[in-house]
Amino acid sequence: MKALKYKDSIDKWLENYFISKDGYEKTIYDSMSYSLNIGGKRIRPLLFLYTYSLFKDEIDDVLDIAGAIEMIHTYSLIHDDLPAMDDDDLRRGMPTNHIKYGDAIAILAGDGLLNEAMNIMFQYCIESESQLAVKACSYISKSAGAAGMIAGQIVDIESEGKKISIEKLKYMHSKKTGALINAAIVSAAILAGADSTEIEKLSEYGTKLGLAFQIKDDVLDVIGDESKLGKKTLSDENKNKSNFITEYGLEECEKQCIKLTEECLELLKSLGKDTEALEDITKYLLYRES
Amino acid sequence: MKALKYKDSIDKWLENYFISKDGYEKTIYDSMSYSLNIGGKRIRPLLFLYTYSLFKDEIDDVLDIAGAIEMIHTYSLIHDDLPAMDDDDLRRGMPTNHIKYGDAIAILAGDGLLNEAMNIMFQYCIESESQLAVKACSYISKSAGAAGMIAGQIVDIESEGKKISIEKLKYMHSKKTGALINAAIVSAAILAGADSTEIEKLSEYGTKLGLAFQIKDDVLDVIGDESKLGKKTLSDENKNKSNFITEYGLEECEKQCIKLTEECLELLKSLGKDTEALEDITKYLLYRES
Repeated sequence: MKALKYKDSIDKWLENYFISKDGYEKTIYDSMSYSLNIGGKRIRPLLFLYTYSLFKDEIDDVLDIAGAIEMIHTYSLIHDDLPAMDDDDLRRGMPTNHIKYGDAIAILAGDGLLNEAMNIMFQYCIESESQLAVKACSYISKSAGAAGMIAGQIVDIESEGKKISIEKLKYMHSKKTGALINAAIVSAAILAGADSTEIEKLSEYGTKLGLAFQIKDDVLDVIGDESKLGKKTLSDENKNKSNFITEYGLEECEKQCIKLTEECLELLKSLGKDTEALEDITKYLLYRES
Repeated sequence: MKALKYKDSIDKWLENYFISKDGYEKTIYDSMSYSLNIGGKRIRPLLFLYTYSLFKDEIDDVLDIAGAIEMIHTYSLIHDDLPAMDDDDLRRGMPTNHIKYGDAIAILAGDGLLNEAMNIMFQYCIESESQLAVKACSYISKSAGAAGMIAGQIVDIESEGKKISIEKLKYMHSKKTGALINAAIVSAAILAGADSTEIEKLSEYGTKLGLAFQIKDDVLDVIGDESKLGKKTLSDENKNKSNFITEYGLEECEKQCIKLTEECLELLKSLGKDTEALEDITKYLLYRES
């Protein structure tokens, strides 16, 4: 698949990032590196890089920002998995960060990854001396914050054991999962100097893709294969959480995934550019088994 | 005291920041606002503002950055107080964030404040269109990260119940407390366009002040008044932690505080500017009872 061309670059960048970090605080680097490198589809950095490549060729120049986005994603997983939150022991078939390092270090590893992502982005802004870079990084930072991912997580926590409205469910996921997926795409377009119509179309694409991604996640939580997912299924049911399946039923969810995917592909085509890689990712997310 | 002239401005800025935030995620704003507004000496934003005012008059223009620095400080306190970390119930005489809101929300409130600080800094960089702003914000961001405050916290956690070398103890505090105090001062100088000699002197001042601050904290932990401190004394002894008192003894610590304070005042004078407010803060930190 063309879309995976850049996955090796991202994986290597992430693998090497904390290498040769030593000293008194070695543990924090080990624990951050552990969660960053236990696998993962790298969807967000791939979306970032392929969106950027619609407008510019120099992908290596922006690998740092792609890596920063994956760090933000990883920090959120580490904190979500904590006993005080979702209390999950397994992630990608491996012990979660707090199972391996303990709760205190897992909290700090999450903090450290979020902070490191910001360090990387500020450093990029210094070196590029570009106002577009500042705008792109600001967009990413906002998507992760209390009006973005954290808003989604707080609604998720407060909704446990309760029936919530479909409107609130959609709101939750648009923030928890959607915000960073959308930001990966939109920030790349901003950074690459896309015009406002292009940014708007890509933002709509990102929003629909984020929703399709979450519905598919809920579907896999019911009918997925634990060994492929690397985590337990039926986690929402066990925690008595509302999700798209409890609201719409399995069949309707699968239909909606297909419909959203089609709309995503239409939006990409309307850009009039070579969007093959993004189309591949979009379809891959629909047909994935993990 | 001249140095407190700007405290009201900071307090008001912090009080108003999350006001009128509502919606599904109201709890996260309430909990962030709670910890941000249960008092505090506002040392770091004051150091930032008074350093800036050595070079520029328009303090209102940079209140946002001062507030962002206090948010980073507050996030670190919320996470440090968690049961998995220092497990403290009281902070400034009030219930800590997790006692009031529960562990999950306290973790997210910390995450949210760190993230909001970054949002504010990126927004400031967009609006000011200034490379000095990007450099100043980058300096603040790095001071909070895994090579800064988080390094100090990880060494602190790993040292619990162990005797550690004086070198490691100094390293720990230079990161845990020193990094953000130094950054508040240095970032203000960078932002205000100070020259490299001035920045160097102020950086040395910040490093010595941070060390004096921490030694004084250790002294107060032994001989302080709980009602004035708003937290329990002898916390290090009860947690079997090394500190400056266990290493040097009380008398030597008090001597070192005075010596460092004198060196700080000398450094300020060597700038040849009206440093009265910074001198006041420096002396206040030496003589404080909380």
